[in-house]
Amino acid sequence: MGRLIAPHAEIETPVFMPVGTVASVKGIPQETLEELGAQIILGNTYHLYLRPGVEVIRRMGGLHRFMSWPRAILTDSGGFQVFSLNELRKVTEDGVTFRSHLDGSSHFFSPESAMQAQIGLGADIMMAFDECTEYPADGDRMRASMEMTARWAARSKKYFEEHKNEVPWACVGTDAPVGPEGRRSESSAVWSASGFAAEYGEAHSDAEPRSPGKPKVSVPMHSEATQALFGIVQGGMNRELRKESAERTIEIGFPGYAIGGLSVGEPRALTREIVESTLEHLPADKPRYLMGVGTPEEIVEYANLGVDMMDCVLPTRAARHGLLFTSEGRISIKQARYAQDEAPLDPNCPCRVCQRYSRAYLRHLYASNEMLAQVLNTIHNLSFYLDTMRRVRHSIQLGESS
Amino acid sequence: MGRLIAPHAEIETPVFMPVGTVASVKGIPQETLEELGAQIILGNTYHLYLRPGVEVIRRMGGLHRFMSWPRAILTDSGGFQVFSLNELRKVTEDGVTFRSHLDGSSHFFSPESAMQAQIGLGADIMMAFDECTEYPADGDRMRASMEMTARWAARSKKYFEEHKNEVPWACVGTDAPVGPEGRRSESSAVWSASGFAAEYGEAHSDAEPRSPGKPKVSVPMHSEATQALFGIVQGGMNRELRKESAERTIEIGFPGYAIGGLSVGEPRALTREIVESTLEHLPADKPRYLMGVGTPEEIVEYANLGVDMMDCVLPTRAARHGLLFTSEGRISIKQARYAQDEAPLDPNCPCRVCQRYSRAYLRHLYASNEMLAQVLNTIHNLSFYLDTMRRVRHSIQLGESS
Repeated sequence: MGRLIAPHAEIETPVFMPVGTVASVKGIPQETLEELGAQIILGNTYHLYLRPGVEVIRRMGGLHRFMSWPRAILTDSGGFQVFSLNELRKVTEDGVTFRSHLDGSSHFFSPESAMQAQIGLGADIMMAFDECTEYPADGDRMRASMEMTARWAARSKKYFEEHKNEVPWACVGTDAPVGPEGRRSESSAVWSASGFAAEYGEAHSDAEPRSPGKPKVSVPMHSEATQALFGIVQGGMNRELRKESAERTIEIGFPGYAIGGLSVGEPRALTREIVESTLEHLPADKPRYLMGVGTPEEIVEYANLGVDMMDCVLPTRAARHGLLFTSEGRISIKQARYAQDEAPLDPNCPCRVCQRYSRAYLRHLYASNEMLAQVLNTIHNLSFYLDTMRRVRHSIQLGESS
Repeated sequence: MGRLIAPHAEIETPVFMPVGTVASVKGIPQETLEELGAQIILGNTYHLYLRPGVEVIRRMGGLHRFMSWPRAILTDSGGFQVFSLNELRKVTEDGVTFRSHLDGSSHFFSPESAMQAQIGLGADIMMAFDECTEYPADGDRMRASMEMTARWAARSKKYFEEHKNEVPWACVGTDAPVGPEGRRSESSAVWSASGFAAEYGEAHSDAEPRSPGKPKVSVPMHSEATQALFGIVQGGMNRELRKESAERTIEIGFPGYAIGGLSVGEPRALTREIVESTLEHLPADKPRYLMGVGTPEEIVEYANLGVDMMDCVLPTRAARHGLLFTSEGRISIKQARYAQDEAPLDPNCPCRVCQRYSRAYLRHLYASNEMLAQVLNTIHNLSFYLDTMRRVRHSIQLGESS
């Protein structure tokens, strides 16, 4: 089990990050996320840039304060949405021109403008601007795309280093505003992007490279609090290109590394192969973040391979479609077989949905298209994911992990 | 301040009842309703009859257990929805043939079948089957409709008296199932429909008719717990017909009386006139329920006139449309003026929405069509209504009421 020290929280790793697209995990109040034990949530820069706009959030002191979330936040670079939601995008060396999925208006993201946006949002962790290579893609395309991502990573870092003190909560001093309920651990004020790297490294300076499941421990460093910028490894489904991407990204130097461009339609076995081979080339003493993955089984698998951070829309999106994850397998709550089932969704789940409501009631809410169906289903699925990761941490702590 | 002793709760009156149409107050978990201090909620028989069906709920022990709500529930008779949602209904002396608004299927409600449905649902309080007279209506139509309601009230009572022991939680003895979180006050097991009337009367047997704002106190009676059936006064917008309807309904004899057929499009001044004149003809020692009313100002006004119970979709429906009630007036949160407003919705409101979130955030959620907008707005509006009624009770208790 590891620990990330972020400006707004200490994060026990491996960690699952619920997705809060436009400053909200759909249907779930922030106090419920706290109750569920969410340590860090993800915001989508693309969506926030369009609505309510970065400037609105920046003026209100950043995303934490805007949405009243005192714990950690990670923002993506906007790159993934630009590529997945925009068929009419135009990519050049400079950046990407795209149309808003909301109103068709034209916009431009470059490494610099994506960094500017993320600094304005003020998340604890922000991501380099990358090109998510489509699947399938041929060798030339994968190489060109990977090289572009590497050049964009260098530009991302350069802009970030020159502008990182513009983070909205840095402007107001060490007393970072985090909403009325804000709480900060004592050590949380003392972390910085470069410090982050140092901490993570320092704690392991006399240690061999971390093997899967081996705890990472970070000692807080006292320095000015700023954001951390993570690099992203691309390279499509090619192991050699992934290795090269990892090496080039590490050469630029980031306090954490993400594996991007997976879960884009490729077979699951291929995802695992690429993750496993890419992990070998990432420093074990820095957080490794696998983007957009996965099922409950996969997050356990990847955590045991050494991945420290994961995010996925699956628990929240599936919940809204009535697909529920339980200790006994998946349940499609819309099925008529549950219409008079008095049992809880998951007899082994301690969440408040399973403690209080029956499958029959949840099935009724879903069949009646009641909003509460989406709310309760989401609470349960998030609880299941967060508990799953908690068990992984516990198991790592006990040294029982494979 | 008064007190109603229902099988599942003691209710302090005057009370506002949030509307939980199909066994859910839209978007709000039952634990949140408890936290807000909701003492009793309303279920719509018409909607529950269509989905999930009375038989499903009956087999699961009744509505309390089905939705895991341990406090009190009132069901309406279905009459209002049959009249408001069905343009093709056919009314005869026997009952009403109508088409489902969901799939167009044909159904029939009579006083007897509406009672049967409500006994199956097992709410604490159920309502006689009435005809809600349309507005405007001429004198003949208002009289004919009122007389039909009176005959249906007698049939409702007759069926109820013959079948009240079929209530699902009566079937399982005194240990009425109310869900995992169920709690029952010690006195709540000892109340019955007839006992209800007696209690209410007994406590006031040596008192003059209750004047507005004067406390009603009820002494629990130890007898078998069953539901209570309330009668409904109709009579359109005619004071004489309302008087006659009240007298005929009282002659049949119910443990509580409702004023129906208002808020159907008439001017507000006329609503008040009819309420005030009808109240004069209802016994002050039995609960008086004004159906489907109203704004925050109106619920205060009517409570001070002597109304004990009110329900209205306004706080919940308005919330879903971004209309919020505050101590400083109404706010339409969709307005651009709130886009960067860091203030809470209502600076005087102790609810968790006002304690945590800004107008800017709520405006963003609404503008982005986020589900959380509806959830948080509903929590606030319900909190405002329930607090308003709490203040009325407090003021009555202090004898400061007009």
